[in-house]
Amino acid sequence: MIEYRNLRVALLGAGSVGAQVASLLIEHGEELANRAGAGLELVGVAVRDIAAPRTAEIPRELLTTDAESLILGADIVIELMGGLEPARTLILQALNSGADVITGNKALLATHGPELFEAAEQVGAQLYYEAAVAGAIPIIRPLRDSIAGDRIKRILGIVNGTTNFILDRMDTDGDSLEEALATATTLGYAEADPTADIEGFDAAQKTAILASLAFHTTVPLDAVYREGITTVTAEQVDSARKAGYVVKLLAICERLTDAEGVEGVSARVYPALVPRSHPLAAVHGAKNAVFIEAEAAGDLMFYGAGAGGIETASAVLGDLVSAARRHVIGGPGVAESTHANLPILPMSRVITRYQITLSVVDQPGVLAAIATLFSAHGVSVETLSQSVLAQSVKGRPGDTAPSATLVIGTHEASEADLAATVTALETSHVVRSVTSVLRVEGS
Amino acid sequence: MIEYRNLRVALLGAGSVGAQVASLLIEHGEELANRAGAGLELVGVAVRDIAAPRTAEIPRELLTTDAESLILGADIVIELMGGLEPARTLILQALNSGADVITGNKALLATHGPELFEAAEQVGAQLYYEAAVAGAIPIIRPLRDSIAGDRIKRILGIVNGTTNFILDRMDTDGDSLEEALATATTLGYAEADPTADIEGFDAAQKTAILASLAFHTTVPLDAVYREGITTVTAEQVDSARKAGYVVKLLAICERLTDAEGVEGVSARVYPALVPRSHPLAAVHGAKNAVFIEAEAAGDLMFYGAGAGGIETASAVLGDLVSAARRHVIGGPGVAESTHANLPILPMSRVITRYQITLSVVDQPGVLAAIATLFSAHGVSVETLSQSVLAQSVKGRPGDTAPSATLVIGTHEASEADLAATVTALETSHVVRSVTSVLRVEGS
Repeated sequence: MIEYRNLRVALLGAGSVGAQVASLLIEHGEELANRAGAGLELVGVAVRDIAAPRTAEIPRELLTTDAESLILGADIVIELMGGLEPARTLILQALNSGADVITGNKALLATHGPELFEAAEQVGAQLYYEAAVAGAIPIIRPLRDSIAGDRIKRILGIVNGTTNFILDRMDTDGDSLEEALATATTLGYAEADPTADIEGFDAAQKTAILASLAFHTTVPLDAVYREGITTVTAEQVDSARKAGYVVKLLAICERLTDAEGVEGVSARVYPALVPRSHPLAAVHGAKNAVFIEAEAAGDLMFYGAGAGGIETASAVLGDLVSAARRHVIGGPGVAESTHANLPILPMSRVITRYQITLSVVDQPGVLAAIATLFSAHGVSVETLSQSVLAQSVKGRPGDTAPSATLVIGTHEASEADLAATVTALETSHVVRSVTSVLRVEGS
Repeated sequence: MIEYRNLRVALLGAGSVGAQVASLLIEHGEELANRAGAGLELVGVAVRDIAAPRTAEIPRELLTTDAESLILGADIVIELMGGLEPARTLILQALNSGADVITGNKALLATHGPELFEAAEQVGAQLYYEAAVAGAIPIIRPLRDSIAGDRIKRILGIVNGTTNFILDRMDTDGDSLEEALATATTLGYAEADPTADIEGFDAAQKTAILASLAFHTTVPLDAVYREGITTVTAEQVDSARKAGYVVKLLAICERLTDAEGVEGVSARVYPALVPRSHPLAAVHGAKNAVFIEAEAAGDLMFYGAGAGGIETASAVLGDLVSAARRHVIGGPGVAESTHANLPILPMSRVITRYQITLSVVDQPGVLAAIATLFSAHGVSVETLSQSVLAQSVKGRPGDTAPSATLVIGTHEASEADLAATVTALETSHVVRSVTSVLRVEGS
């Protein structure tokens, strides 16, 4: 066996991911040392409650409640405790002491990323975060290194397993949102309080991280437009299927030029219609996938487990080997690049395609009236189908004509124009209700 | 604009990939410099014929036929000329002069990889080769860095676009192999001499590279078992479809324990049946994808363009940015790891599942005779279906009984046992012919 210099590794947090990291690190220590070119000594694991049950066994003598002391003298600190504090303070302490830091804390990075990256750069340390986005899937390093010579046009990501499981269930089994959510909870894919997932907060954090990295531009969390899946109905999913689409909650990072010719980036999360033939449509269950459209490379997709203790631990260990190699080689870390600093475009200036479902008065001249209304707001209609004969819909007072359902697909239009169109539709005398407005992505 | 230290980049070869690299490097020079932290000056492009037409314009004054002089004084050398010589000698010269080298030359790496990696390690230089496998898809860096802390169990790759296009055509349009190949040639997906692709030589080179990297073990090209797609028939593809499979030419790298308990690796290329529900089944046309099964991370897939000048150039530029960052940071390169050095198991010791199609004499007792024959050779039958009533098949002399077609799916068995079974089937008096033997992978 080769003798290596030993690196001292401190682990903060022993939840589902942390416990697996500790266990793999102890079990595969020699193999990891061979790959890293350095011994990796787990010097301690900071936890809140030493007696708490863990998903993998950790030797009692490694556990401590004193995270601050543990950090002192560590070469590499792995933060898997989650939450903003004390994680932020501890990471800053670790970086300032010269340690490299590995974190899977998406909330922290999306909120305090620039502060942390700057602290790392100041002291020549490195902050790794492969586990923060899309669990086991290597996406951070490919974006930072492999595609570094290319220019990314757009990222469409399925980065939240809970919502993908729910929407997949609705698509496959015709479940309602409530039924699918109940199944997800029973199977452990949804937490007791599923708000962070189904309202898109989790996906928005990952979107901020991906967009910042992809466009070399700081994209703060509050610049990410966000809609969750709570308004998605079984009818929408069913209509989508019949029209050749599937509804997916997408994290979208896009470099675009708006109607006024301003080049900028957009970061947004919402349920969208994706064509069945798109590779993202085949991402089922709780799996994640990140689809990248690059100028030179064309279309790329990265697919795998987006969560899970041992799966995410794999991403952490990959970062650990990188950090250890860097310690052996020496030299400063690679700073997070924000050289492009493109403007961040608000949602109103995003340009995409839409599918709008209307309940209308079924009488002569209605189609012409609707088409005129779209055209007057600068939105060009691509397809128009009177797809379903509606059952008796409750009309407005005094409204006795029968109803019909119209499904309208638009060409690309700006959100602002589309919003104005929808407002006009809602007050039009030929429209009884705007049943559904969904964006179409990936086509 | 920030002032950077300039790095001298020499390019060898200006074919479809090389010309795009030169063009992108000139066009996006400033952006690449920002990402790399160093200016990237293209000091020259070595070509055989200065007047030859190129797919992208290169300034005349950069072109030279003197590759050896161009290398002198270069910080980074990009080799995209292909072939074994003079590429090998030039790369060795570049490495020995201390330059980092980027290559997309799979034939060279599969044949002389260990020599080149050793030369790089000797002088502390680094050899990058993201473009050598699966074109634009980042797969080398994820394997080397992102999944470095995990243990890979198996890789199933669609790494040859030509054969995937042909097999996809056969599956989708019912084309014969000849028809699909003709279409591939017309559309530019197959070369005038398609041997390297359709006989699996190209895939075998990539398999050797992937297996060496994934298992930290030198896997020489001649240890890769190889079958091409030339024996795949329209009938096989059709039967596969009906049985819920699709035929794909797979590059398989596997860590396995053989029947005698020896742990080793297997590297092999052949057309195999893949279940329709497997993510690889959805890889259409000339696209590539690499599916990885890892111990901790679970299933991962990387998908994208496997060839194309500008697409592959993206991978080269990613390597270039990495090489430049390393020059800025300093320190020795990361040596290619062969610490595991697992034994390479011959094909006879590989264990997998099979689907065998037989034309048999249609008379009482035949099923029992066949089942007994399998069992006597240690191969366990999982499914047996008399799927098609054969039309009159020419029997052996004096053989007047009607024929039936049997499709047999086996449990896992070793190649040696399966081969012995097939030999016994071929001489059995109840078997008229063994129509098809295909391995089943990914289930």
